[in-house]
Amino acid sequence: MRLYVGLVHYPVYNKNAQVIASAITTLDLHDLARLSKTYGVKQCYVITPLVDQQSLAERVRRHWTEGYGADYNQDRKEAMELICVIESLTRAVTSIKERESESPLLIATDASKQKDRSLSYGAARKIIEGGRVVLLVFGTAWGLEKKVMGTADYILEPICGRTGYRHLSVRTAAAIVLDRLAGR
Amino acid sequence: MRLYVGLVHYPVYNKNAQVIASAITTLDLHDLARLSKTYGVKQCYVITPLVDQQSLAERVRRHWTEGYGADYNQDRKEAMELICVIESLTRAVTSIKERESESPLLIATDASKQKDRSLSYGAARKIIEGGRVVLLVFGTAWGLEKKVMGTADYILEPICGRTGYRHLSVRTAAAIVLDRLAGR
Repeated sequence: MRLYVGLVHYPVYNKNAQVIASAITTLDLHDLARLSKTYGVKQCYVITPLVDQQSLAERVRRHWTEGYGADYNQDRKEAMELICVIESLTRAVTSIKERESESPLLIATDASKQKDRSLSYGAARKIIEGGRVVLLVFGTAWGLEKKVMGTADYILEPICGRTGYRHLSVRTAAAIVLDRLAGR
Repeated sequence: MRLYVGLVHYPVYNKNAQVIASAITTLDLHDLARLSKTYGVKQCYVITPLVDQQSLAERVRRHWTEGYGADYNQDRKEAMELICVIESLTRAVTSIKERESESPLLIATDASKQKDRSLSYGAARKIIEGGRVVLLVFGTAWGLEKKVMGTADYILEPICGRTGYRHLSVRTAAAIVLDRLAGR
């Protein structure tokens, strides 16, 4: 399995459909790292162009991989080592390409059903299990900006629960998606 | 479906296997409420005997159901209305019994595989879909205390990803469990 995850903080929408760079939620780093470790994700990119936000994320990562946290909690260390703070989605793609000698298939996630390039969980699972390099992208705040969405090869079906309510946190959505795509 | 969720802050273990009352993580309230709303859970009990922690949880709930948050975000309001802050698991069971005129089946969750009363996801799903009243219990910190575990009718299989790593946050674990038991 050559699965990568990207957590995008820019460009995303705010509540009023304006394009913003969202703030890092440090808890997301922990949750995404632990999910990545659980489901065999090779690297989890935390994407933000804001230098101070990069520093914050980097400081959290280092605390748990090299600092006091590394001794305090070995399990967390193993997970946090999968985090890579990077300035853009393009740079994440380049980094994967260098590592895998292959461009990743870009699969975006969205809380709304898309008309084109929609991908079912079953089909996505087959692609991943087939050994294709895949970058699975999650947007923070009110979701990935349209232009980024436009660069995706596929857009994963939204998560349907039982009620039509579609307002999960990115952490819990990522948990469900990873379990559906890479769970046993 | 008559599914209830309990998020237990006491009695749980800390890192050194001592019994403690863990602190409320306010973000868990949001995530569990939104998951509950997504998967048709009837009520999400936030269980703590600590009065100041009850006040904190209650204040968060009220902010989003009656306060400024209720106007700011109607979707969050709908989710947070499912939160009920309560002092013990016993009281949660009583509350469900009063509402449903039936004792709930207690299904506990654990990150380790149990020898007895172990329940597969498939079997748990059938019980829930069969219409039985079920209280699904999640422990915070290092997990539910042994005695509480002893009162459970069943203990759900741990979440296995791909790697044997079993250190998810309670938020993301609850997301995966609810999707497996009540997802479509």
